Amino acid sequence: MKLVVIGGGTGLYTLLSGLKKFNFDITAIVSTADSGGSSGILRDEYGMLPPGDIRKCIVALSESEQLLRKLFAHRFDKGGLKGHSFGNLLITALTEITGSFEQAIKEAEKILSVKGKVLPCTLDNVTLCALLENKKKVKGQVEVNKSRIYNNSRIKKLYMQPKAKAYKPAIKAIKEAEVIILGPGSLYTSVLPNLLVSGISKAINKSKAKKVYVVNIMTEHGETDGFTASQHVNEVEKYLQGQLDYVIVNTAKAPENLMKKYQEEYKSQVIPDIEKIKAKNKVIKGDFLRRKNLLRHDSYKLAKVIHNIKL
Amino acid sequence: MKLVVIGGGTGLYTLLSGLKKFNFDITAIVSTADSGGSSGILRDEYGMLPPGDIRKCIVALSESEQLLRKLFAHRFDKGGLKGHSFGNLLITALTEITGSFEQAIKEAEKILSVKGKVLPCTLDNVTLCALLENKKKVKGQVEVNKSRIYNNSRIKKLYMQPKAKAYKPAIKAIKEAEVIILGPGSLYTSVLPNLLVSGISKAINKSKAKKVYVVNIMTEHGETDGFTASQHVNEVEKYLQGQLDYVIVNTAKAPENLMKKYQEEYKSQVIPDIEKIKAKNKVIKGDFLRRKNLLRHDSYKLAKVIHNIKL
Repeated sequence: MKLVVIGGGTGLYTLLSGLKKFNFDITAIVSTADSGGSSGILRDEYGMLPPGDIRKCIVALSESEQLLRKLFAHRFDKGGLKGHSFGNLLITALTEITGSFEQAIKEAEKILSVKGKVLPCTLDNVTLCALLENKKKVKGQVEVNKSRIYNNSRIKKLYMQPKAKAYKPAIKAIKEAEVIILGPGSLYTSVLPNLLVSGISKAINKSKAKKVYVVNIMTEHGETDGFTASQHVNEVEKYLQGQLDYVIVNTAKAPENLMKKYQEEYKSQVIPDIEKIKAKNKVIKGDFLRRKNLLRHDSYKLAKVIHNIKL
Repeated sequence: MKLVVIGGGTGLYTLLSGLKKFNFDITAIVSTADSGGSSGILRDEYGMLPPGDIRKCIVALSESEQLLRKLFAHRFDKGGLKGHSFGNLLITALTEITGSFEQAIKEAEKILSVKGKVLPCTLDNVTLCALLENKKKVKGQVEVNKSRIYNNSRIKKLYMQPKAKAYKPAIKAIKEAEVIILGPGSLYTSVLPNLLVSGISKAINKSKAKKVYVVNIMTEHGETDGFTASQHVNEVEKYLQGQLDYVIVNTAKAPENLMKKYQEEYKSQVIPDIEKIKAKNKVIKGDFLRRKNLLRHDSYKLAKVIHNIKL
């Protein structure tokens, strides 16, 4: 089955880790609107696209031995290297040596024996922006992510500056896909930024692929406080300017002992208000919860349900 | 033929690059007294042994494709990463992940498909020191290297603080070697530091291997100003407390157009005063010069003459 997975961050990492275990032909299309941390520094100092989310996907899809994957994800914690992940530095060095970000990703995929492909949604250097409900405009992934915290206002409209053109191989992968999966992941800063790139939404809507959206397990403080499942779905369809075929919603309750830490950080479980999700969307509900230290999707359960989607 | 090559820095890199083309069983034993540049920073900030000279040997002996070798040697030039070579960062990350410097080297050798072995001469964290002829004591590889410049005095006695114990696999390799090669490379800061490590000289002297010393092409300002071939040989035998079998001396004159730059840096060609080299040393003289931008040994010519040494 030809799968295209669109998103960014840890959500995409989780999904890909599960999908890797099945016999899918996987292309990950990744947001490059990241501007914080190690990626942000490399973006400023080396004028390159932020490698962080791409690095995570490469690790998720790598079939190399454990040590090489650990190495790629390793983060330095001292001196001038502090905060940088080794994989980001590898992509940076490869960009300097090969002269292009896209070639660097291809070489990194080879070194890490990646099963599938990882593509940036755009090669343009863009800034994620948002118009808030209080009419204030904020710039940068971190500001958008924290809009509720820094500005006590919800996001009204997400946009990019300047306008970004889609990376052609990403469009091609979307055209040829049998299933396209959006999310899970930060709604406004990992999933939707891909849909702001000119050409991406149009290609998804034109594609004959089944369109799937995986609703997050938890709300995210600053971005999606209080958002229910249907609110997530509505936002995705608004930016997609099109219709989803399937919506995957977790309905299992998280154990209380794990919830405590989240509540302290003003995060709660996304309420599965399935009755409010429009009739045209087939809802795949179930227990997709991983019950370890962090409340995330169980990557295997998620991959299995995707495996069973009827084409 | 079982070869052990002892040294450090660019000299060792040159020699190994040539030797790799022959069918030798190569072990490189490398000084870890380096304290400048990227290695010095990592030593200070990460409390690890300096990876620089080991990195160079790994690149020299790597059978990986060009890109991977380029990557390993790539140097960052901006921000907090400035001055660091990618290979040093790889060894640092591997040291943190595996918990040991020796394991990190082994893993780096695997990643780079190294033909042969690269061993630190010691795993002890030591500082190279020198007593100068003016009775002043200097500490650290950079200070020793520049003793003539900073202190206008020659090195009288080289020593280590604290005393270092040899890395056992290095001793084993020396015992089993058929040919042991010292140099080329900075006399006091790359070659001789190995002989200061307790157990190394003794093992070399006890070994049945032919002992070879490759005399440098050029003098080094600060360390060996005005040194002739025989002076190099005398210093090596003094610290070895033993006798060399072969001494390889370049007798070809460097082209004047290349000499100009060296003369501006107070470097001159090592005078091949073969008549002053003791009768017990077989001198292999000849044209070992590479006539490119830098005056170095021609790595192929050097490897070929070593290949012809009679056991």
